[in-house]
Order: sequence, then structure tokens, then C-alpha cells
Amino acid sequence: MSVLVYGVGVSDFGRQPFTPATALVATAIEQALADAGVDAVDAVYFGTVYGEMGSAQRALHRLGITEIPIVRVENACASGTTAFHEARAAVDAGRYERVLAVGVEHMTSRFDRGAIAPDATDAEGASGMALPALYAMSATRYVEHYGVDPAALAQVAVKNRRHGTLSDHAQFRSEVTVEEVLESRMIAEPLTLLQCSPISDGAAAAVLGPPRGNGRDVRIRASALRSGALWDHRNGRVWGYDIVAATARDVADEAGVDVTDADLFEVHDAFTIGEVVTTEALGLAPEGEGARLVVDGGTALGGRSPVNPSGGLLSRGHPLGATGLAQIAEAVWQLRGEAGARQVDGAANAVVETMGGGVSGIDGNACVVAMLTNERAERRR
Amino acid sequence: MSVLVYGVGVSDFGRQPFTPATALVATAIEQALADAGVDAVDAVYFGTVYGEMGSAQRALHRLGITEIPIVRVENACASGTTAFHEARAAVDAGRYERVLAVGVEHMTSRFDRGAIAPDATDAEGASGMALPALYAMSATRYVEHYGVDPAALAQVAVKNRRHGTLSDHAQFRSEVTVEEVLESRMIAEPLTLLQCSPISDGAAAAVLGPPRGNGRDVRIRASALRSGALWDHRNGRVWGYDIVAATARDVADEAGVDVTDADLFEVHDAFTIGEVVTTEALGLAPEGEGARLVVDGGTALGGRSPVNPSGGLLSRGHPLGATGLAQIAEAVWQLRGEAGARQVDGAANAVVETMGGGVSGIDGNACVVAMLTNERAERRR
Repeated sequence: MSVLVYGVGVSDFGRQPFTPATALVATAIEQALADAGVDAVDAVYFGTVYGEMGSAQRALHRLGITEIPIVRVENACASGTTAFHEARAAVDAGRYERVLAVGVEHMTSRFDRGAIAPDATDAEGASGMALPALYAMSATRYVEHYGVDPAALAQVAVKNRRHGTLSDHAQFRSEVTVEEVLESRMIAEPLTLLQCSPISDGAAAAVLGPPRGNGRDVRIRASALRSGALWDHRNGRVWGYDIVAATARDVADEAGVDVTDADLFEVHDAFTIGEVVTTEALGLAPEGEGARLVVDGGTALGGRSPVNPSGGLLSRGHPLGATGLAQIAEAVWQLRGEAGARQVDGAANAVVETMGGGVSGIDGNACVVAMLTNERAERRR
Repeated sequence: MSVLVYGVGVSDFGRQPFTPATALVATAIEQALADAGVDAVDAVYFGTVYGEMGSAQRALHRLGITEIPIVRVENACASGTTAFHEARAAVDAGRYERVLAVGVEHMTSRFDRGAIAPDATDAEGASGMALPALYAMSATRYVEHYGVDPAALAQVAVKNRRHGTLSDHAQFRSEVTVEEVLESRMIAEPLTLLQCSPISDGAAAAVLGPPRGNGRDVRIRASALRSGALWDHRNGRVWGYDIVAATARDVADEAGVDVTDADLFEVHDAFTIGEVVTTEALGLAPEGEGARLVVDGGTALGGRSPVNPSGGLLSRGHPLGATGLAQIAEAVWQLRGEAGARQVDGAANAVVETMGGGVSGIDGNACVVAMLTNERAERRR
């Protein structure tokens, strides 16, 4: 069965220490229901990483969403797109008519302002192998292995911050220069502060259902979920290449078109190196040439393959459980032609990719890739 | 499609502070795969409450279970049965052939030995409304409202501890008297220590798949998941009655038989009052008469409706994410006639019920009820 996205919603993203997670969830869900034109759903998949026991049911109960099946899912940074993937499968199987996928994270309640060091009570903190450190190691390996100028990585931040100025949904809406990126505080060499996605609170949601004869709905053409190692030191691939490439192949098999044929890409730029490697894993550039693609403008709005027209995580912020559904929201707005100043003209297909890593943990990771389609635009081709 | 349980496995349950969660998971999965006679699965639903970000993928990667879709689910104490419910739906939809449902909790790493007070950093700790307190309030209301002798609640512990002596899988395998139960340390009036399930580490797993012509497989006749309030002060119902009753009705509708027709029941006796209310919500006793049913022996092995032949959570222990799948394992053993000294003769149908509550949190809860069937025994009727 075709499964459609009826509507999407996002809360503000940013540091909102005094706005509880339940309020962020309420905003995202109310928007998504209104956008979908429905007033109730039959089941919910709720993506959140740091939510306490039972927090999904509690947040939804306050909105009157109760009695129905609610499943909290957690797949690290891919929690939001995992909720989306499972919601799609549930509609596809005919288990439910209308399913809500929602994701939220209140990062400021967990991380001190500006602190990069994680909570010392978890494995990440105990090992000292925080995610910025893991990404920094892969960036170091990448630039050495391919002979890339680290300044090329900084161009990812420059591009995405420029895109972010075109969005009402971004935490950061100001441009930065490559010099500013490189001269910002060093977090984990070679990654400077402006090459790391910020601490952010936010929620995002999507309402899914079967075809209902509404031409505005966006079709989920394919969706895949995989697990795998963050990297394997026995081969030359840096962070996340293999798992993203394999998941993208699954999506291409289901969609019947190459992933590279999509008109825009919302990918997981938690750190600049992440976007570069992902563009290669998706096939937008040969291995080792993703950085050059950025420098040449190929992934900018107006370029051949716009990547992160929303501004990405580097602009929008990265409330873990919300991120995947915020990417879905951007894809939907683009495919409906509602993306305003950052609209990719005539967008017919959009690809979303999220990759979530276990900490202290090169050894367990989740990746979701999905392709969404505006069927009328697709048929005009 | 019929969905079958091919095999189940459980680790030891008990205080195992020096056995890591990954080792418990490995034991449960290896047993379940061997019991199922399969050497690989196509997807995993992984139930755990306190697992860190990405911990599901990490634990499984070490067992060589990777690349496939892995979804961590968390629905409080119902996390294990939520994994089971979602795994069943995935097989039913034809998404995968063989699906592993696994659950684990390493309670001793989170809770100090013997400490009932929860972590002060979570909502439960901040409010002081720990689960024993919430259950104690419902027990107080129950005994007052129905004029029940609190000693009748203690009989649940006496029965389940007696059942536990017949199991190799229980954390506690010794009998207790009603006097010992009532005279044990007061935790939250009227609930004494021996009326509370213990801190326990453990894992449990089940392998599900479509029919394969193996007469030993157990069929999942029905399964339902609901959310709802823990209790509603505006009506007379105590803890969890309404949500359990509604979920049991869903199961009866799907199964085409009354839940009360089952030959045995594995239910969520995290506290003695929980079992009493659940037997009423399942329809085994009229409201207010569940305590009498225990006193009269109706829910003991040999009685009309054996409840918790395994010894329940009060004997087996309660590693949150593992509990639901340990209940499933007991149901499967009973239906295969492999339950040894605690076997319910000729068991054809078994009901499993798990109820998981949000903390600080009368307002968000999850419940799973499932009915499993030995089809040959069922046909002989």
C-alpha cells in the first residue's frame, strides 16, 4: 500500500530550558494534526533518547492522546526517523489508519549550557569517547587519507548556515565565513565549534495514513532501517560510510530509482565531516571527493544536488529524537512547494538520512534513509 | 497470518552486579535461537527501560547481530511485551520472516542494593512518588473501599513464592508464610518488603516467525497494546484496572474466546495489589473479590485459574525490560508441556499481561495483553 504523509509540524528549535518537553511535543503535534486536517490518530510512535520511563505516554496523555497503542522507540540520533519508519510500516500493514510519528529532545535539561562533555554516569562519559571525539577521529583520518584541506570541511558549515538564514525554523539564522568557522573554539581537532551542531530543545511530528485523494499529501516512496558498526578499522572507510551506503541501496531497491536522482537531501550533519561522508555514501560524490563537491557548490541551493536546504542540524539544531522528523518536515514542505526562499524548484523527490551512534561504541549504530515523492511533480517528468 | 513463537530463552534472574547486561542478553538470545532451531533473524525489537543511547545495537553487534533493522522500544514495565507485540505485528505484516524480541534490565547498576528510593535526577525521584508509594496508595484505597483484610493481599506473595519453589528460573525459590510477609519490613503501608518484587538483573528473548510445520511451535492467538491513565481519581477504580480490562477486551475480541477461558495467566505482580486488581480486570473475579480468590486458592496451581505459575515477578524478580518476555517464556513452556513440577495439565491457552507505569505520573501508562495457544491441545477440546 502507498503510505502518505498527511501533515507535519515542528516546535521552535533552540535553547528553551524553561519550555518543558511536553510543551514542545504539544506544539509539534498540534501543528501536524492541523496540517494533516485530522483531529485524532490511531497509534503513535514516539522517538526520544533521554526520555524517562513512560515519558511518551505521559506527554501524550496531557494532549488527550491516550487509550491507543503508543510505542516509544530509541535508536540514538535516528530515533525520530525510526519512529517514522515504524509508523509507515504500521500503516502499510493496515494495522492502523492514521499514525502519528513524533520526536522530541530537551537537551538543555541534560547538558549544561555550552558543555560538550557528556554525563559522566553513562558509558560515553565514563570512557571519555564523546561523540565529538569520535567524529574528530574520523575527520582526521578522512583529511589524511584523501589529502583534503580541513578548510574544505568548514565549507559545509558555511553552506548550511547560509541555507539556515532562509528558514524560520533554524536555531541559527546568520551566515558565517570560512574564517569564522576555522577560528571558532576548537572542540576536538580538527572540528571547531561551528562545525558541531548546537545543543537544542525541540520536537517534530508527522501524521501518516493511506491514500485519501488529497493531492497535497506526499508519498513515502521508500524507507529503510539498518544497524551496523560506526566504522571498521579494518577497512579504509571513515565514520558511517558503510551503513549509510547500504541503507541507501535498500531505499534505491524499493524506490526503483537511484537515490542520487532525488532533487534534495536532508542528511545528518551533526558534524561537518558527517555531511561530507554521507554525500559520498549516498553516491553524490565519489569516495574522497565529498569535500570538493561542497567547495564547488554542488550541494548548495542552486547546485546540482542541494544538501540540507533547511540549514541542516548545524543551523536548525539537534534535539536528538526530533531531528529525523524535522528532516521529514523539510522534505514535505519542499515537495509541496512551501519552502519559501529555500525552495528547490519543482522538487519531486527528496531523500532524508539520519545516522545514530552508540557511544563508547564504535560497535552499534542505526541508520534510516527514506525517499519522499510529490507524485504529480514526478509524473510530469 | 498466524504468527508463532519458535523458541524462548532466559538468562538467570537475580542480583548479578558483575554480569554485564550484554552477557545476560547473549545468554537469553543464544537459548532462544537454539530453542527455535534457527541461527539468524531478520529484525530485532529490543525492550529496555534504562538502556543508554544505542545500547540495543551495541549489545547485539557483539553477538554478530547487525546490519538488520533493530528497534529499541521502551514502554516502562511493558517494554518486553511491547517488543513482543511489535515483533508479532512485523511478522504478521510479512515485513520479515524471523524476528527476535529481546528484553533486558540491569537493575543493580541503577539502584543501590536494597534501596527503594529512585534516582533523584528523574521525575520519580524529584516528586518522591516512587512506584511503591503509588501502589501503596492504591492498595490502601482497595482494602478500604472493599473492606478487605490486608492479610489477604499478603496471600498473593505466599502463593507466588510457593510457585517459585517449583521453578529453576526464579530469583527466590523458598516459601514464605503469611506472617513472614506481614512482618517483613514496611516499604509503603500496607505493602511490606515481601509484597514488592525484588531488584533483579536479567534478560529474556523469543524468536517469532510464520507457520513452518513444526508442531512444537506456539501460536500467538491475540495481542493488544494500549495506553491509559494509571488511575482516575474521579472513579472508584484502583491502580490499572481500566487499562488492563480494556486491553483484555481487545484480546478477547481478536481471539474469539473469553480471556477467562485460558488455562493459566502470567500477570504483572510487581506488588501484591497489582496481581489482585489484574485478576479482577481480566474477569477472573468480580471487582473487589480478587483478594478472596487468592485466599480461596482459585489462582494457585491446581486451582480454577492458575495465576503466575512461574512464581511471578515476586519470585522471578523484575528486570523491567526482561519481565514481559520472561512471562512469554513461561507461557510457551507451559503450552509445550515443559514446565515440570509447575505444569498446568493439558494447558491449551495462556494469557500474559504486563502493565508499565510512568512515574510521577498517574497520567501515562502502557499495557500489553497476549494470548498464546497450543493448537493441538486446543483442537482436542
